[in-house]
Amino acid sequence: MRSNPALHFTIEEYRERLRRIWSAMRERGVDVLVLSDPCNLYYATGYDAWSFYVPQFVLIEQGNDRPLWIGREMDERGALLTTFLEESDVTGYGDAFVQSADRHPMSRVAEVLRARGWNRVRVGLEMSSYYLGARSVDVLRAELPETTWVDASLLVNWVRVVKSDAEIRYLRQAARITEEAMRTAVDGTRIGARQCDVAADIYRALISGTAEYGGQYASSPPLMPSHERVNTPHLTWTDERYLPNTITNFELVSSRHRYHMPLGRSVSLGEPSKQVRALERALVEGIDDVIARLRPGMRASEVEALWQSAASRHGVRKRARCGYSIGIAYPPTFGEQTISLRPGDETTLVPNMTLHLMPGVWQEGASLVITEPLLITATGCEAFCELPRQLFVNG
Amino acid sequence: MRSNPALHFTIEEYRERLRRIWSAMRERGVDVLVLSDPCNLYYATGYDAWSFYVPQFVLIEQGNDRPLWIGREMDERGALLTTFLEESDVTGYGDAFVQSADRHPMSRVAEVLRARGWNRVRVGLEMSSYYLGARSVDVLRAELPETTWVDASLLVNWVRVVKSDAEIRYLRQAARITEEAMRTAVDGTRIGARQCDVAADIYRALISGTAEYGGQYASSPPLMPSHERVNTPHLTWTDERYLPNTITNFELVSSRHRYHMPLGRSVSLGEPSKQVRALERALVEGIDDVIARLRPGMRASEVEALWQSAASRHGVRKRARCGYSIGIAYPPTFGEQTISLRPGDETTLVPNMTLHLMPGVWQEGASLVITEPLLITATGCEAFCELPRQLFVNG
Repeated sequence: MRSNPALHFTIEEYRERLRRIWSAMRERGVDVLVLSDPCNLYYATGYDAWSFYVPQFVLIEQGNDRPLWIGREMDERGALLTTFLEESDVTGYGDAFVQSADRHPMSRVAEVLRARGWNRVRVGLEMSSYYLGARSVDVLRAELPETTWVDASLLVNWVRVVKSDAEIRYLRQAARITEEAMRTAVDGTRIGARQCDVAADIYRALISGTAEYGGQYASSPPLMPSHERVNTPHLTWTDERYLPNTITNFELVSSRHRYHMPLGRSVSLGEPSKQVRALERALVEGIDDVIARLRPGMRASEVEALWQSAASRHGVRKRARCGYSIGIAYPPTFGEQTISLRPGDETTLVPNMTLHLMPGVWQEGASLVITEPLLITATGCEAFCELPRQLFVNG
Repeated sequence: MRSNPALHFTIEEYRERLRRIWSAMRERGVDVLVLSDPCNLYYATGYDAWSFYVPQFVLIEQGNDRPLWIGREMDERGALLTTFLEESDVTGYGDAFVQSADRHPMSRVAEVLRARGWNRVRVGLEMSSYYLGARSVDVLRAELPETTWVDASLLVNWVRVVKSDAEIRYLRQAARITEEAMRTAVDGTRIGARQCDVAADIYRALISGTAEYGGQYASSPPLMPSHERVNTPHLTWTDERYLPNTITNFELVSSRHRYHMPLGRSVSLGEPSKQVRALERALVEGIDDVIARLRPGMRASEVEALWQSAASRHGVRKRARCGYSIGIAYPPTFGEQTISLRPGDETTLVPNMTLHLMPGVWQEGASLVITEPLLITATGCEAFCELPRQLFVNG
């Protein structure tokens, strides 16, 4: 491995990651792993560029400490700038392959597999990755009918579930940025302000970061539905001005070296209804209860049950999962796609796992989003962010 | 179709879009089209939410003016808020299907196809869409072995290639936002300023927009490699401060109602080298030549040849394509994936096509990005943005 001051982690940490990936490959019977999820490219090699809209891969062979990067020719330099890879382990396809009707980048990948004899082994593909298209897999299967394909979806995502102390440090840095962005959101939500101007100030806070370090683009934009849109998740802002007696649900997420820190808070313009106050109590009590009682060794489903049990005392029940694992992210999601806090997820929680406890509730008459990202510790858990756990009310 | 004040176009425009989609389906032999690209969901129905990280689809049957939306249950309300669809044409799958190891949303889609008898016809899938995963297609094929699957990749993208006047209006609005964002970038690039702070101000300009309307999140972050990273595309910013005698290449893109307007400009801190000045002349002359000579009726490859011919007089040759069609976008790209300005693309250009002439050159010693988004008119073309076409030099 080539040392490179642009790397965000020590070479030793990358070696350890590779060993853990090999071990997971052994368990899943994978000889050569073809990574396509940009989170996993970043985790395994440091590769970090806005180039995942074309096919790009890192290939990892069992026991071989030289991963191979394949991508677009014009991104080779970016691969050398951001990773520990040697020049001979970075190989590009020409631009004639890009979004072409008669040529496909996977033909190049097939060539490389064949040249190394990796067409005669068990090759793992991330079949549920956003950036391994259906056509890509069809081309690969057609070009290499002799190869044994293994679904290696989320193999590296599961390796990523327990964070190192260095990773936790970046998550803590991201938490400082998120707090500042959320304060900006809460302060800016005033009657008469344009939603887009508040969104603009939030972006500024997310990217400018702190005096010591900046933020990066996040996997997702600020979600901040207001007024008649508040009962719906996954909506952003409009050009409209904030109106009296309306509620806005902010779901913000910052990125520090691709480590993402989400947080949700709601803001009411004017005194909220009793129904909304009751929902607030349910959400907050549920979170307080989880933070007080969560212990390493518990299963994910038990944490969900803890929250539901507290919330049900207030007549609230959430149908969707109430949390998930977080860490490295690229668009379109900061969910790690591993642990979900929901019935049936029997993952045992251990120290240095990081979860977003996300009990947002959207329903007619009362919708609020009050969430907490959590670090599992040796004795329990702690909240990453320090911001009052409440519905904010502006005059 | 249900009229909805939240729609960005008239119902008549949506009817016309549907007619054009049916016509393209007929040509490609598709009876039922399963759209998965969020750009195409937005184009066909108005659906606009940050929910494409889970499988979601719009199904269009030949001649049937009621498209069907299938997505996550919690997004049903968002579908009703943002589209012309009737409540009975919006159907969700439960949260147990989301990122689950033992259940897949495509099982629900298969059920719907079967219930409507659409498993016995020719069904088109967007096999190269970012948001139709390989595993999704495998599940669908396994559940419906009796169905004839047709690759309908880019079918609707090609319908979108010629814009309506209403679409051009939004692109012009986006151009005003892009100009302001680029002015912010150029003004902010000063020795000693942190790159992340300039990025933060750019974001603010992109989202705050103008006094009349705001911007939305774009498909891509500002790309702005500087100093030793300048020879590489697709990189963003760092926490570092701008240094004397360095160049920064800005590639910015704004979004107005999902219509994206990109622009590239370079900024030099201190007088640039002769080599850089020569490259600037090549890029600018190439663009000037294209704008002066482009005529509707020309083919995409001829436009590329025009640019290369002008640039070659300065000894510059670009290996990658030098432009592509633009319009609606979601992450991860604002390229429409249709027309490319490159040898072999024989698309005939007609009025109301919109292209990003993108002759960025990255090489050792001199790398610059000076680009122009163009509208093909009845007699030639015009640049969307008004900003000096040059390398900016700050003291």
